[in-house]
Amino acid sequence: MERSERAQVLIEALPYIRRFADKVVVVKYGGNALAGSASAEDALELFAADIVLMRLVGMRPVVVHGGGPQISDLMRRLGIETEFRNGLRVTDAATVDVVRMVLIGQVNPQLVAAINTHGPYAVGVSGEDAGLIRASERDPDLGFVGDVESINPTILVGLLDDEFIPVVATIGTDASGQAYNINADTVAGAIAEALDAEKLIYLTDIEGLRRDATDPATLIRQTTASELDELMADGTIAGGMIPKVESCVHAVRHGVRRAHILDGRVPHVLLHELFTDAGIGTMVTERGLS
Amino acid sequence: MERSERAQVLIEALPYIRRFADKVVVVKYGGNALAGSASAEDALELFAADIVLMRLVGMRPVVVHGGGPQISDLMRRLGIETEFRNGLRVTDAATVDVVRMVLIGQVNPQLVAAINTHGPYAVGVSGEDAGLIRASERDPDLGFVGDVESINPTILVGLLDDEFIPVVATIGTDASGQAYNINADTVAGAIAEALDAEKLIYLTDIEGLRRDATDPATLIRQTTASELDELMADGTIAGGMIPKVESCVHAVRHGVRRAHILDGRVPHVLLHELFTDAGIGTMVTERGLS
Amino acid sequence: MERSERAQVLIEALPYIRRFADKVVVVKYGGNALAGSASAEDALELFAADIVLMRLVGMRPVVVHGGGPQISDLMRRLGIETEFRNGLRVTDAATVDVVRMVLIGQVNPQLVAAINTHGPYAVGVSGEDAGLIRASERDPDLGFVGDVESINPTILVGLLDDEFIPVVATIGTDASGQAYNINADTVAGAIAEALDAEKLIYLTDIEGLRRDATDPATLIRQTTASELDELMADGTIAGGMIPKVESCVHAVRHGVRRAHILDGRVPHVLLHELFTDAGIGTMVTERGLS
Amino acid sequence: MERSERAQVLIEALPYIRRFADKVVVVKYGGNALAGSASAEDALELFAADIVLMRLVGMRPVVVHGGGPQISDLMRRLGIETEFRNGLRVTDAATVDVVRMVLIGQVNPQLVAAINTHGPYAVGVSGEDAGLIRASERDPDLGFVGDVESINPTILVGLLDDEFIPVVATIGTDASGQAYNINADTVAGAIAEALDAEKLIYLTDIEGLRRDATDPATLIRQTTASELDELMADGTIAGGMIPKVESCVHAVRHGVRRAHILDGRVPHVLLHELFTDAGIGTMVTERGLS
Amino acid sequence: MERSERAQVLIEALPYIRRFADKVVVVKYGGNALAGSASAEDALELFAADIVLMRLVGMRPVVVHGGGPQISDLMRRLGIETEFRNGLRVTDAATVDVVRMVLIGQVNPQLVAAINTHGPYAVGVSGEDAGLIRASERDPDLGFVGDVESINPTILVGLLDDEFIPVVATIGTDASGQAYNINADTVAGAIAEALDAEKLIYLTDIEGLRRDATDPATLIRQTTASELDELMADGTIAGGMIPKVESCVHAVRHGVRRAHILDGRVPHVLLHELFTDAGIGTMVTERGLS
Amino acid sequence: MERSERAQVLIEALPYIRRFADKVVVVKYGGNALAGSASAEDALELFAADIVLMRLVGMRPVVVHGGGPQISDLMRRLGIETEFRNGLRVTDAATVDVVRMVLIGQVNPQLVAAINTHGPYAVGVSGEDAGLIRASERDPDLGFVGDVESINPTILVGLLDDEFIPVVATIGTDASGQAYNINADTVAGAIAEALDAEKLIYLTDIEGLRRDATDPATLIRQTTASELDELMADGTIAGGMIPKVESCVHAVRHGVRRAHILDGRVPHVLLHELFTDAGIGTMVTERGLS
Repeated sequence: MERSERAQVLIEALPYIRRFADKVVVVKYGGNALAGSASAEDALELFAADIVLMRLVGMRPVVVHGGGPQISDLMRRLGIETEFRNGLRVTDAATVDVVRMVLIGQVNPQLVAAINTHGPYAVGVSGEDAGLIRASERDPDLGFVGDVESINPTILVGLLDDEFIPVVATIGTDASGQAYNINADTVAGAIAEALDAEKLIYLTDIEGLRRDATDPATLIRQTTASELDELMADGTIAGGMIPKVESCVHAVRHGVRRAHILDGRVPHVLLHELFTDAGIGTMVTERGLS
Repeated sequence: MERSERAQVLIEALPYIRRFADKVVVVKYGGNALAGSASAEDALELFAADIVLMRLVGMRPVVVHGGGPQISDLMRRLGIETEFRNGLRVTDAATVDVVRMVLIGQVNPQLVAAINTHGPYAVGVSGEDAGLIRASERDPDLGFVGDVESINPTILVGLLDDEFIPVVATIGTDASGQAYNINADTVAGAIAEALDAEKLIYLTDIEGLRRDATDPATLIRQTTASELDELMADGTIAGGMIPKVESCVHAVRHGVRRAHILDGRVPHVLLHELFTDAGIGTMVTERGLS
Repeated sequence: MERSERAQVLIEALPYIRRFADKVVVVKYGGNALAGSASAEDALELFAADIVLMRLVGMRPVVVHGGGPQISDLMRRLGIETEFRNGLRVTDAATVDVVRMVLIGQVNPQLVAAINTHGPYAVGVSGEDAGLIRASERDPDLGFVGDVESINPTILVGLLDDEFIPVVATIGTDASGQAYNINADTVAGAIAEALDAEKLIYLTDIEGLRRDATDPATLIRQTTASELDELMADGTIAGGMIPKVESCVHAVRHGVRRAHILDGRVPHVLLHELFTDAGIGTMVTERGLS
Repeated sequence: MERSERAQVLIEALPYIRRFADKVVVVKYGGNALAGSASAEDALELFAADIVLMRLVGMRPVVVHGGGPQISDLMRRLGIETEFRNGLRVTDAATVDVVRMVLIGQVNPQLVAAINTHGPYAVGVSGEDAGLIRASERDPDLGFVGDVESINPTILVGLLDDEFIPVVATIGTDASGQAYNINADTVAGAIAEALDAEKLIYLTDIEGLRRDATDPATLIRQTTASELDELMADGTIAGGMIPKVESCVHAVRHGVRRAHILDGRVPHVLLHELFTDAGIGTMVTERGLS
Repeated sequence: MERSERAQVLIEALPYIRRFADKVVVVKYGGNALAGSASAEDALELFAADIVLMRLVGMRPVVVHGGGPQISDLMRRLGIETEFRNGLRVTDAATVDVVRMVLIGQVNPQLVAAINTHGPYAVGVSGEDAGLIRASERDPDLGFVGDVESINPTILVGLLDDEFIPVVATIGTDASGQAYNINADTVAGAIAEALDAEKLIYLTDIEGLRRDATDPATLIRQTTASELDELMADGTIAGGMIPKVESCVHAVRHGVRRAHILDGRVPHVLLHELFTDAGIGTMVTERGLS
Repeated sequence: MERSERAQVLIEALPYIRRFADKVVVVKYGGNALAGSASAEDALELFAADIVLMRLVGMRPVVVHGGGPQISDLMRRLGIETEFRNGLRVTDAATVDVVRMVLIGQVNPQLVAAINTHGPYAVGVSGEDAGLIRASERDPDLGFVGDVESINPTILVGLLDDEFIPVVATIGTDASGQAYNINADTVAGAIAEALDAEKLIYLTDIEGLRRDATDPATLIRQTTASELDELMADGTIAGGMIPKVESCVHAVRHGVRRAHILDGRVPHVLLHELFTDAGIGTMVTERGLS
């Protein structure tokens, strides 16, 4: 590329850098991308570079992650059987230990290490640290599956003020110190609200939401909380997208300016969203944009 | 106990509280105690209470831990064979993953959770966070076994200033982000030096050092760096005690006021050491006390 | 006492230390205890130790004192006659000079010195310093007897923020700089309100309030502002207890969480109240505890 | 006076205000002036106004005072005999109590009150507060007569930073909390050094030092530490001036820029010295002015 | 003048210094005084000294200036014709360049330099700096004549906090960066409001407002916003005084405590107003003084 | 350009952004570029965008400018004759007024306005503000031509700490407040030294320095202070480049890490230099790069 074109790209990023200076952006990174293929490693590197760039141009990124595939993998290797009740995985004591070990001890340090190849920026945090995620039992039959009861963002605020990039493993605890497995999508939304974030971004493996799930042409570029309520009510949005979409809806109704569902398979999709006007994935606001 | 006796005990703690106000105390907690027996759980609770008390009366405790037994246990459950070269365990990629998973994902959160039953005090930190522990390869034949190359205490200082209790998992990384297994005793000493600690305390499963290893009557109450050099040179101190004793010697020669080897099996041994004049275990100073 | 019992006492203090961390506790210390007998000196030492312990475990104690007996003593030695009108002592210019000399120059430094044997903690403050206590004349016939017109807590807040223990002599001044003698119990309550204190504690020479003044069995463990209003209205509470009780009632109605009337003759009664659940003396809250 | 002349005076003060902005000026105020005549009261008012003006135009004044005449007066009223040994007053326990009562409880609040008629500026401090003056016994035969062992200026620095005017009563304590009577001139010098003062000013009842004690024409306008050493060695300077002159010499040799011996009987002599070029009294510098 | 009289003048300034400590005082300095005669230079020196004195005794002065005569002069020298429409000067591109050059490059540095002969106090600021004055076009026919749309006082607050004296040239800009000529009287009022000033002072070439413009005996010493509304409505106040009076009225109705119209030809008129009770010029308050 | 290429450019800027975070970069902007052609306006816009980008990605840019052509233009328009002595322009009172008016009132606001179309970033500063540039007369025959005597960077540090972009007009003053015309190249170097800048950049109208002035092929990419000394000594570097080159040499010998002479005619040349490894213009270091 020509020198002059490079300069042009940098200059065109100016208004976006200004707009997001000092703004908190919560990014939910899917566990799939970290599951171990060679290309996953590349994806992780690209993602890490994007996050570091966000931080260096003045944003305050917070990374939230789960780790479903890695958990299943270790369960399998340890020969722990998963019991299902009404289609939901039961999380017994042995399972929650595995979940914790994988999220905090495997996925989280992978993300931290990838970011920190650029410098001492990332700090791994679990929901158990400094009371970050207080959880409550969802259903005795499901064992240690928790709901977010409250977020104590003190530790995140402290790290952001010290210019670190927090990377959050979504384990919560109850008052007794018992660990719970919590949906990472839900945690991302709750943290975005607690931090009064400018943006909540879900990196997924779909292009975005569709008005007709079977028709790529119906990709939703921009939508509102109310429309998403309807699309969930009529079943258009279903399955694994529900926690993401519910969190988007809740977040934009509780102070988060914009929520996004982006295709994490597109290299540097975060930069496309943050530094250009290109419509990428699905953007959710509380009301329509005027 | 009588009310008046209780008051008396509190009052007698006064001079110790004064002496250690705002002082950093690094405590190395042995992995053995966390390995899973019922009494271990009790020991953990006692330990957690001691640490919280230290913090609440104004000290700045930092907990450092390893996790040998728990690592061996998971290795076994996963069927990973351990290779030894010249009597030293070879740490290949699969092994370092297990080490990391256990230290950061199992032992660390257990400690954090135990402390946080008292309030949102503890924050888990790994050596990968914010570049805390920079490691270098010890010997290509041993794989990912690392030595401490440098300590960047920024994250610990930040957490201590925010009145948190850092709990450190002793994983280090090199510049490329590769994780290394590092001796936790050595890390504890290096962190004590980097933080200009008042005390470095090793909680072990022995009563203290002995001048004659076979004679309990030769327990060393108080010693100096030079004497310990001699005891290591003549073989009196050997084996697993070497990293601890070397770290004690190095630490008191680099600004740490006192180092202690205490018997972690004694309930509340930290409080005995910190709040009474009772001679507990072995105390190391740079020179003899005047 | 056994080492393990000592540790146990410290550990049991934990929840109380946590509860009162950074909280202001205003303690009114009676002049009687300082009047000069050998045991008084001991009492002062015990009191000083309690106050220092409160400070060292993170509370923000403020000591307020009067000095009735010491004032009478110096009046007698100087041969100054006390005139009474309607049963109230008339405070003429000579008398207010004696009051000031005793409170600021004798009682206050005794308290400061006793506390400071533990370290440079206490700072004597009079109501004349930095406009702390603005007084107004109660009744021209009584001379320089003043009521609290307002409290300017700036100097106390400054000293507490610098981690000092303020010891307050209850002399007030009007706009012209004229000194006034003011009831120390009333000042203690006014200062507790101005500092938004957690607790206001009166150390007295009675066991606590009684529902029937003649029957020790009617000791009131816990009561409310309304009940105390009634007990004063029906004359159950009378005489010298009135300023204390009125101040308790006013204080709990103006933001102070709890007020206590304790028996200052019991050694370390402050520690009993603050570090145990034992019901000591009389506790006053705005409404009943739920 | 004409409006325009008034303006002229203010404008001519400009360079002096600039020169002393934020500078510490320690003023030793003699006890004589407070001893009780009508004109003394006026003198006190003038002095207070000068001090407040210094503070309001940006200096950091510290007032230090003794109270010899007032002490003698109360001794007499209480019928306490003063014993002398080798011409020095013996300070027994009863005497030190009187000294303390007078300095802290009578003279100090008079100064504080006089200043505070202008606003909440002054805060009384004794050498016992926050360990300000640590004293040691001079001679067992003299009882509680102390020398300055060390100054802990923390409390003064704190008050100055909060823009208060500290007024210091010169009582010191030893480690046991025992009070000592200390020469106020010496304390003033020691405090000036500890605060790295710009000026140390003694307000006395003489016009200044003389080269020939009997000849007013030999008034010394400007001198150096060395010349004063000589004048003390040859007996020209003697008696009560010794502590002042010794303190001046010590102070200018330990960082204080200038020391002054002024005639406190001249109304507003502080303003003459600080806001004009008029040569007032005797000025001492380490070396001659170039 | 006698030494004692000088001291008296300083002491009499005390209550005024206290009253205005830390208060913002916005002074509009007329361009006439800077137009170039020898006496103007003297006037500038006197004015500079007054402003420095205000700052040194603790006020926070802000100087605002225009420069009408100097603009006309340069226009003439450059041979630029001034066009008038409906009696108003049209400000075309060439004219606004001249206005900017004179205000920012000639008048402003003259004021800054005069003040800075006393020390590094003054900092020149134009309305273009840091978005201080946002302007909007008043009337397309008048060209670049602007109205104040908003004031962003960030740069002024920053300079005042760093203890500088801002000197403001009244050029504004619109969003595109286009400069506008703005009435300096109006800017002074808007800045006083934005800074929540204690006082807004106009230095003019009249003695003050009059109830009857032709009768010096009707000078208004003190008035209210409502009365001035009436005097403008009935035409008593007219012409060039309108922007000043309107700004006074608006300012006292928006938080500025007092506005003054003073005679800038009187030497040190600022000191007369600020440091004496003499009634100088016309004082405006929101309501009558009680 | 493709989305992915854009992202790539941003990512490739990462290491440069990291390297220059919080670093001061002083940029000397030539007056030529502002002299008024259409393309000059474009150049100004490009320059402003570069400076804002530098600030937004975390650098601390300082702009220094002269204005030779604009000065000549106004001189001509005002009919002021320029006298030369020994080939040097004599700066009389009328001339220095023009210089000041042009630099502070015309060129400076143009730069400020251009930058502030992006937001309230730039603040114009002259050397007269807060004593920034203290000048001394070079030669009585030359009138008000000054040399830099000292730089007081307080105002620049304050603005940089408040995240503003200072734009400096190179007028200096002597103690009497007299303005002097000073070489802008020299000022840029002196400011870079006073601010301990990372870089000092001269934007010129040449491609860079040459070892043979007549041979473009001898462009110097990288050089040292010593080599430049030689090139000036042997006359290779001469004329208008002398002040720039002397300043580069002095600056790198006094703490500035690198100095650059760049071709300001190349659009976005600052970005090429700062965000790529491309060798642009001439880079000067103290010693050769290892």
